[in-house]
Amino acid sequence: MNLYEVVHRRRDTRAEFTGEEIPPDVLRRVLTAAHAAPSVGLSQPWDFVLVRDESIRRAFRDHVQAERSVFAAQLDQERAETFSRIKVEGVMESSLGIVVTYDPDRGSPAVLGRHAIADAGLYSVCLAIQNLWLAATEEGLGVGWVSFYREDVLRRLLNIPTRVRPVAWLCVGPVRSLPDTPDLERHGWRNRLPLEDVLHYDSYGRRN
Amino acid sequence: MNLYEVVHRRRDTRAEFTGEEIPPDVLRRVLTAAHAAPSVGLSQPWDFVLVRDESIRRAFRDHVQAERSVFAAQLDQERAETFSRIKVEGVMESSLGIVVTYDPDRGSPAVLGRHAIADAGLYSVCLAIQNLWLAATEEGLGVGWVSFYREDVLRRLLNIPTRVRPVAWLCVGPVRSLPDTPDLERHGWRNRLPLEDVLHYDSYGRRN
Repeated sequence: MNLYEVVHRRRDTRAEFTGEEIPPDVLRRVLTAAHAAPSVGLSQPWDFVLVRDESIRRAFRDHVQAERSVFAAQLDQERAETFSRIKVEGVMESSLGIVVTYDPDRGSPAVLGRHAIADAGLYSVCLAIQNLWLAATEEGLGVGWVSFYREDVLRRLLNIPTRVRPVAWLCVGPVRSLPDTPDLERHGWRNRLPLEDVLHYDSYGRRN
Repeated sequence: MNLYEVVHRRRDTRAEFTGEEIPPDVLRRVLTAAHAAPSVGLSQPWDFVLVRDESIRRAFRDHVQAERSVFAAQLDQERAETFSRIKVEGVMESSLGIVVTYDPDRGSPAVLGRHAIADAGLYSVCLAIQNLWLAATEEGLGVGWVSFYREDVLRRLLNIPTRVRPVAWLCVGPVRSLPDTPDLERHGWRNRLPLEDVLHYDSYGRRN
């Protein structure tokens, strides 16, 4: 696939994992792509915790299900019904969990480009995640970003030091297929916006 | 180029811009790729302000140069000397500024997947930036992320509402070439790390 095919083929995957192993050379290429992301001051502040252990994944899945209920309780009846049909995680079905973290001490004390914007390091970690996601798509793997969790719970589960911030739990693995339409759109949660809605010219709100 | 070639070819560009215009169809493909990024709850919380106006760009460039001095003043002599050789922006030399912002109200009140992690919306914006960066690379354009600025200054310059957060000023445009080695590595600021340094297994700090 070329770059644009990968970008538009990529999906957030929850229900399609086969549970098969990821071949080591494939995983290596995907992680190498993530690690080639740009980062503020070349700080490369990301880490990748590869979670294979079943008991850790089960504990995390149980926590995610509890957080799902917390979110569902905030919804009105119509939204709650729509939400009830949406799967939010494939933690046990995917073959690997990849937890991506942010270490603000990497490259410190003077990270070039971070003195005015403390979150710039966090942004770098997200760029690595998108590289990982696209590389996985190129390799025929699915990726599902789980964000129904409390950071402290995930920290404790993986012995992540207090200074380091978990940014994502990614469910990764071979899939039967990638859906053409995002799950949330298919289930009527929310639609994709026209590009024009998010474009401005020289001044925020100026539409031409 | 295939996905991996684009990922590894991509560079943060400052000195290589030619100042030529970006053809409209190319710009459209690049922005469409950015807009195809994944987002928490399909909220698509990004906006793109295309800054062509010279006076706005000059005002921003002047602010960036002032912030460069703020950062330089924090460095010891050896680092300050290294930093003095590094160009941190191509705001006037590039043909277009693209300011990417985060709107937390998009898709509110109940953004699926954001109740436990408020920053998840901000993360989505970064994924769109990486899509933009890779698409620009595919098209032979350079991208330079400028982060030497105060968010409030940029907000005022572009009439960005208070609730909306600027995430990046991207210098975008045709380039003479893309350097093989990141500028910061070439100038001895910092080196790329081996992949092994950022990999952990089942528990943070476990190296196999």
